[in-house]
Amino acid sequence: MNSHSLSERTVKEQIIYQGRILNLVQRTVALPNGSHTLREIVEHPGAVAILAQVEPDSIWCVEQFRAPIGKTLLEIPAGKLEVGETPEACAHRELGEETGFMAKQLVHLFEFYTSPGFSNEKIHLFYATDLIPGTMHLDEDEFVFGRAYPRDEIKQLLEAGQIHDAKTLIAIQWWIRLKERVRF
Amino acid sequence: MNSHSLSERTVKEQIIYQGRILNLVQRTVALPNGSHTLREIVEHPGAVAILAQVEPDSIWCVEQFRAPIGKTLLEIPAGKLEVGETPEACAHRELGEETGFMAKQLVHLFEFYTSPGFSNEKIHLFYATDLIPGTMHLDEDEFVFGRAYPRDEIKQLLEAGQIHDAKTLIAIQWWIRLKERVRF
Repeated sequence: MNSHSLSERTVKEQIIYQGRILNLVQRTVALPNGSHTLREIVEHPGAVAILAQVEPDSIWCVEQFRAPIGKTLLEIPAGKLEVGETPEACAHRELGEETGFMAKQLVHLFEFYTSPGFSNEKIHLFYATDLIPGTMHLDEDEFVFGRAYPRDEIKQLLEAGQIHDAKTLIAIQWWIRLKERVRF
Repeated sequence: MNSHSLSERTVKEQIIYQGRILNLVQRTVALPNGSHTLREIVEHPGAVAILAQVEPDSIWCVEQFRAPIGKTLLEIPAGKLEVGETPEACAHRELGEETGFMAKQLVHLFEFYTSPGFSNEKIHLFYATDLIPGTMHLDEDEFVFGRAYPRDEIKQLLEAGQIHDAKTLIAIQWWIRLKERVRF
């Protein structure tokens, strides 16, 4: 079997909801064996996330209340792509808005789908270094509390299972591995 | 500022769609500053993902076509929680269905939200070892192609930016770090 034979063919598509941030689509597809099934698909504009190294051995994280789960999570800074915006431009903008820092260096690490079973949301993850402090300016409906987290604290939170955000788990594991190989 | 002051209070909630796998809810919330905003929330039953170590230095990965993105991704085995099912029971069931293996050892690694900005989907990630081969029995609408991937190949795919699934990036980074510290 090759990848091609796993593909599904769209038979019918119906837009259920067009919203402020996301759309919901019902798609009937033909499976590789010919039978039909329904896929429920959430369309999302995509986002960036920034692993912001604010000191040689610290990164910036934010506490943010998340309505869908009714809880505050510890996360790396992130935000949705605006129409026509490149991921790089979005990363610089979101970093400025959420942390106040400007990055002289921005390296693209990974791009990944958060929930490919039901959504097309793609996150571009960047590593921002050589940061210059500035002024935060959050969106009107955005309330976050951020600070620098030293590597020891991040490692402890990771190992205690206290990081519950997917993009943050990806970023901090990458960063810890980088740092442990460099052996600061 | 403490976490409590970041909370949002629900003012109004409307169910837009109740589907086969997910529901869509429009919620009006009062922000910490008192003003109102709309949150679009996708309710999901939650899922498990399994880092299945099928040989001392290999894990099982599957290629799976994902309708929302129109592409085949390389992922660790995963599946949705059924009503009333514990994450552990789900992990054993999905491992059997997608890989044919039965695990004598199952360790809970992390639980995380995939897209906490718009969805409550939570994934429980398990590390399965001491595997016994058996027979695959996929769901009717599930088509996956799986095999054992040696650590060198996984590392190469990771470093070449060819892993595009969030749960898989979390799992394999954890596993590589474990193996490199153990120094096989």
